Amino acid sequence: MKQRDKQKTYQWVGKRVQRKDGPEKVTGDLKYMTDYRYENMVWGRVLRAKHPYAKIKQIDTSRAEAYPGVICVLTYEDIPGFNGFGIVVPDQPVLCHDYVRCMSDAVALVAAETEEIAEEALQLIDVDYEVLTPVTDPEEAMKENAPMLHPSGNVHTHVQVQNGDIEKAFAEADIIVENTYISPRQMHAFIETEGGWGILEEDGSLTIRCPGQYAFRDRMQIARVLAWNPHRIHVVSNPIGGGFGGKDEITVQIYLALLALHTGGRPVKIHYKREESVIAGIKRHPFKVKMKTAAKKDGTLIANQVIAYGDTGAYASLGGAVISLAVEHSCGPYYIPNVDLNGYCVYTNNGVSGAFRGFGVNQVCFAMEQNIDIIAEKLGIDPIEIRKKNVYHQGGISSVGHRVTASVGTWETLDVAEKSDLWQRRHHYKNNPSEPWKKRGIGIASSFHGIGMGIGLPDYGAATIELLPGGRFLVGVCSEDIGQGNGTVFAIVAAEALQCHLDDIDVIQGDTKLTLDSGTVSASRSTYVGGNTILAAAPNMIQLLIHTAAEIFDIDPEFVEHRDGKLWKTIPVQGKEVLSYAEIYDYLYQHRRETKVEGHFMVPTAEKMIGKNVGMPHKVYGYQTHLVLVEVDMLTGETEVLQVLSIPDCGKVINLLGLEGQAEGGAVMGIGYTLYEDTVIENGLYKTTNFTNYILPTFKETPHIQTIPVESDEKSGPFGAKGIGEVVMIPIIPAIVQAIYDATGARIRHLPATPERVYQAMKEQGMI
Amino acid sequence: MKQRDKQKTYQWVGKRVQRKDGPEKVTGDLKYMTDYRYENMVWGRVLRAKHPYAKIKQIDTSRAEAYPGVICVLTYEDIPGFNGFGIVVPDQPVLCHDYVRCMSDAVALVAAETEEIAEEALQLIDVDYEVLTPVTDPEEAMKENAPMLHPSGNVHTHVQVQNGDIEKAFAEADIIVENTYISPRQMHAFIETEGGWGILEEDGSLTIRCPGQYAFRDRMQIARVLAWNPHRIHVVSNPIGGGFGGKDEITVQIYLALLALHTGGRPVKIHYKREESVIAGIKRHPFKVKMKTAAKKDGTLIANQVIAYGDTGAYASLGGAVISLAVEHSCGPYYIPNVDLNGYCVYTNNGVSGAFRGFGVNQVCFAMEQNIDIIAEKLGIDPIEIRKKNVYHQGGISSVGHRVTASVGTWETLDVAEKSDLWQRRHHYKNNPSEPWKKRGIGIASSFHGIGMGIGLPDYGAATIELLPGGRFLVGVCSEDIGQGNGTVFAIVAAEALQCHLDDIDVIQGDTKLTLDSGTVSASRSTYVGGNTILAAAPNMIQLLIHTAAEIFDIDPEFVEHRDGKLWKTIPVQGKEVLSYAEIYDYLYQHRRETKVEGHFMVPTAEKMIGKNVGMPHKVYGYQTHLVLVEVDMLTGETEVLQVLSIPDCGKVINLLGLEGQAEGGAVMGIGYTLYEDTVIENGLYKTTNFTNYILPTFKETPHIQTIPVESDEKSGPFGAKGIGEVVMIPIIPAIVQAIYDATGARIRHLPATPERVYQAMKEQGMI
Repeated sequence: MKQRDKQKTYQWVGKRVQRKDGPEKVTGDLKYMTDYRYENMVWGRVLRAKHPYAKIKQIDTSRAEAYPGVICVLTYEDIPGFNGFGIVVPDQPVLCHDYVRCMSDAVALVAAETEEIAEEALQLIDVDYEVLTPVTDPEEAMKENAPMLHPSGNVHTHVQVQNGDIEKAFAEADIIVENTYISPRQMHAFIETEGGWGILEEDGSLTIRCPGQYAFRDRMQIARVLAWNPHRIHVVSNPIGGGFGGKDEITVQIYLALLALHTGGRPVKIHYKREESVIAGIKRHPFKVKMKTAAKKDGTLIANQVIAYGDTGAYASLGGAVISLAVEHSCGPYYIPNVDLNGYCVYTNNGVSGAFRGFGVNQVCFAMEQNIDIIAEKLGIDPIEIRKKNVYHQGGISSVGHRVTASVGTWETLDVAEKSDLWQRRHHYKNNPSEPWKKRGIGIASSFHGIGMGIGLPDYGAATIELLPGGRFLVGVCSEDIGQGNGTVFAIVAAEALQCHLDDIDVIQGDTKLTLDSGTVSASRSTYVGGNTILAAAPNMIQLLIHTAAEIFDIDPEFVEHRDGKLWKTIPVQGKEVLSYAEIYDYLYQHRRETKVEGHFMVPTAEKMIGKNVGMPHKVYGYQTHLVLVEVDMLTGETEVLQVLSIPDCGKVINLLGLEGQAEGGAVMGIGYTLYEDTVIENGLYKTTNFTNYILPTFKETPHIQTIPVESDEKSGPFGAKGIGEVVMIPIIPAIVQAIYDATGARIRHLPATPERVYQAMKEQGMI
Repeated sequence: MKQRDKQKTYQWVGKRVQRKDGPEKVTGDLKYMTDYRYENMVWGRVLRAKHPYAKIKQIDTSRAEAYPGVICVLTYEDIPGFNGFGIVVPDQPVLCHDYVRCMSDAVALVAAETEEIAEEALQLIDVDYEVLTPVTDPEEAMKENAPMLHPSGNVHTHVQVQNGDIEKAFAEADIIVENTYISPRQMHAFIETEGGWGILEEDGSLTIRCPGQYAFRDRMQIARVLAWNPHRIHVVSNPIGGGFGGKDEITVQIYLALLALHTGGRPVKIHYKREESVIAGIKRHPFKVKMKTAAKKDGTLIANQVIAYGDTGAYASLGGAVISLAVEHSCGPYYIPNVDLNGYCVYTNNGVSGAFRGFGVNQVCFAMEQNIDIIAEKLGIDPIEIRKKNVYHQGGISSVGHRVTASVGTWETLDVAEKSDLWQRRHHYKNNPSEPWKKRGIGIASSFHGIGMGIGLPDYGAATIELLPGGRFLVGVCSEDIGQGNGTVFAIVAAEALQCHLDDIDVIQGDTKLTLDSGTVSASRSTYVGGNTILAAAPNMIQLLIHTAAEIFDIDPEFVEHRDGKLWKTIPVQGKEVLSYAEIYDYLYQHRRETKVEGHFMVPTAEKMIGKNVGMPHKVYGYQTHLVLVEVDMLTGETEVLQVLSIPDCGKVINLLGLEGQAEGGAVMGIGYTLYEDTVIENGLYKTTNFTNYILPTFKETPHIQTIPVESDEKSGPFGAKGIGEVVMIPIIPAIVQAIYDATGARIRHLPATPERVYQAMKEQGMI
């Protein structure tokens, strides 16, 4: 196909295109939905659980209801429909009835004239609790005598993949490395905390304006709770002040909907303060990963045994899927013939864990890449060489046992790393620390990440293209712009396909009335799926243009050529020779004809499910290698990342500036995860409360990051593109830890690698 | 409101209107979807389980695939999405993977050039089973050591309602009656067995033409299995050769969709033979009801204790809802202050039970009305008097403890029965049997049935009205016409509201592209909901007409009057004085304006849920009394129903002819249930195979049926109407059994009351 012709010169694709929403976002001109205020508005607040695990004996709202300025107080009794939500299993109560199972649990809602009154009213709601002992450790929760947090037991999911003969392989191995790795509860820390608006319209329909990562699914979840026809609910989910997976699940949409039914048509606003966001929001699953990896003397990996425990907290959300992805990716982008991979997603009373950039792969990559490094070191093999030796190539077999038919660029990413200045002159970089009491090290790691939902799960998209006055186009793809700049990608794809100027494309996203269902913005899928839907719609638009031109020319459509953004007559007949899009629009308008077309796309899947694991495997993966240089202060254990080389295989790059943005943002998020971030929960109670004690990397901690994309040509992708949103933050995690080892001789197996942990590890290793 | 003015003379409402689809249905002109054949079609068939409970060790399709003429053979491995379906809990596999749990289970699908080849190919699919001992008795299934058919255990639902002090009430009672009642597994026995068409269209979308009771939900269930965007699936579910609840759940829609993906665009047809329909189709839940009822000497009912076991078979389908309705209605339309009501929906290996006209109420009504009759007899109170004494009235409290604010006509239905010729001259009727060896008896019973889904469940509707050329209207309501004639009801409501002739209304139903989601056609809701949605849309259409007329007249809309199906100018301005709908249409067409409006309706709910029982209570109920005269052959035990007086309280009658049709059809279905019908399953195996051994009442068994509606005015209903589809078959069941007792002195507590059972009972009572 022409589009995939590597030689083809594109007008827009692959260029450095400034984000369409860039100026208004960096200048602060853009108002996010939570920035608005209205004259007749009312404020909503949520009463949270007082204990991480308790039985509710009684809820008395009478004092709060009587408080002046209070408009309504709602409890589970006021829910018209199903009292639950959750993307896969709706096991989380909207408003708790019998039990609270974590501090995130909501017990009541208040709407009041001011935010202060709403806050005061919360204090007046009397909830009588019988306090229970919380279950806080996943392994304890799995024991037979542990209190059951849900009727189905505390193990929400057990995912297993077995291939080959693991016992035989371990017996025949030349080297076996076995370690346990612990990773933290990361917070999404988006700029815009959860919030939005609920409005009961005059015609009895409901408008929910609330940032989210899948407007149509949010609408479904709202409708289920309200027992309403989803068509009477209008969800506007764009623009968003950051998502990263943390707005994939329902945040406040259902609360807004419930309150809006009781405020007499006045718009109700909820906007969490950061403290509330910390408690209410989902987090990345903390993992404990036990990994035993075996190799032959020549570095060939022959076996891997994995047991991963993910703490999903009190409710499932996407925990089952996170564990499934962790297992699928637990051996890295390598071929290991003998594996026994196990993941357990376990309920505890520790908040709620859910979707987060990387989606379970971060935690297992941290373990796997470390084990490989240890094997390489013990065998005296170069860390890049051992990886190059073990990677699977396109057409090869993955460690979960399926043939990978899509493009695979891991080897090339490693090769770019190997040839880089940082690697070639690594001894020079290492031997020149900034201070005599500091030491430097270099680390490398690779990873991969599936694009889309994987086999057996709904995974589709749809786009509309509408011809506008003046020959412009309006492209509609619901997939929200959660900060990654996918709107600009959609504009580039449309401009390229429609042969017009980028400025002639408007993009609309995140609106259940104005766009078609295009699936969730997660799983690194929105460039791949959104791009493909636009490329499915564009030929329909071109056909419309051609046929209309033929009608105007009064000739057969086969004699009309679409070229250079115009419609040309190819036979000698009297009259006009060429028509612009604007002229086509005018003709269609005059003849009362539809100027809008649709395009649909179903994400292709692998041939066969791995066992009964819905979602496993994926057909298409993005790949990534990170090379990092760090410097460790031997007196304090403090680590600074000095340089990052990010080498993604994202297929064809659509917007080079956008890719660099993703790679840089991902690297910094990986640095935060590795060195600083953890939401500490003890006995079910949050010890971390705000950014004062949740440490994020700032500009000061941001190193020089260079991005060199490897553009493997993915046949199924738009112009050959894949997705890259998640994997750009993953291998940097073990790469940093490996660099710390390279600098200090201390191996860190418990993240974040705080100065205290690094110092302690150096001491234990006798390095200081 | 004008519409509800009892004095108002309606043009169409309440008349005897011939069904719009009547002529083509009675002449056979109408082709049902399963009647069609196409040139390039292929045939689909379903491989069913060989055993009621077995582990699948292996499925080998190779011989079938190699068979000439076979196009594809599909197993669970070919399911792109989620392998399950079920309206509430999708626990039924589309194609079984690990276990088969009943003879209804599907294991593989075949598409072939002819039906014969498809049938032969089924024989060539080798399934290796490990046979397990089936669980066939619900009470056995509830025991601790019973094999668990599902991970959550064998009790799918336990519904409980407790009010008052049952122990105290029993201690203070003057009379207590306690009995156990057993009811059969009735078959829907619709004329058109399950079948339809699957077509993969050229644009990649999918069309499923298959009779069903909720096109939009069917589409959702198909999409879930295919992992497709529902918008790419077009479901056409109308016309239907009978439903009665048996086409509420998925029948063959998903099989058609799966096969259509593998036939290269050729339409695939499945159409069950009756034998397959008997095995595959859902049935009415067989119940065992233990009921203990207490009264004071004066006949005041004071306590009722109920334990009902419903056998839902291997999968839930709507079993949980059926049990909930059974419990809600278990005390009849009476007020009993002290109750302990329990229903258990239990998994067994006996086929699958699901929705069926009456929906759990038939079984408990059979028990309750018998207990009341026994109490009345023992206390020497007239059976009508005891009922009149105990019924709740509008504004009163039901036995599940909620205030019934909607209209209640039970007392009036009993009063009509009491004043009827059959009751007044009952001794005359009784004392003149047709033969000396026959005896006659009279029985009376009352019941009620909730309209719609009940509190907490989605329950909404939407209608469109489009102005057509010539001033006609197209009314779109998805709610399918499953035989009840709701299409004619919709036309009547629209003609009345729009002030036009009935012939100027076209109605379209059952199409996900052409109509809006209007909810399921079940729960006696389609007249009530569909009517209300049209009455919500009609004012929008009238506004459109008025505003357009104002524009044409060039005056303010307030000076336009809508009267007698025309638009009149009310101020003296030059030009035309009156406009017809046809003229309005022409103007709108010329000005490229929308001629279609929408109307939406949410079903009102009761104030508060009863405990945690979603769906309980309802706000609106239909009520019904049946009076019957039977004659029993004392030599054979054979019972003939001679006369039926059907007295429904359906609120305002919309179509009298339609109501009579429902009442007569319901009575005959009740006769079948009481005297003849049972699908016998032994050890999980069907002993009933076809209508040769499943005995349906025919015209010969149809008595004279008189219908006298009581029209209580329901404020929330369209023109005051409620719903009546189900309750018209319910109290006739105990009324017949009571009449048998009246004739013979033999009480039947195990249905159907076959000649053998009646004869045996007479013998046991010493009557013969």
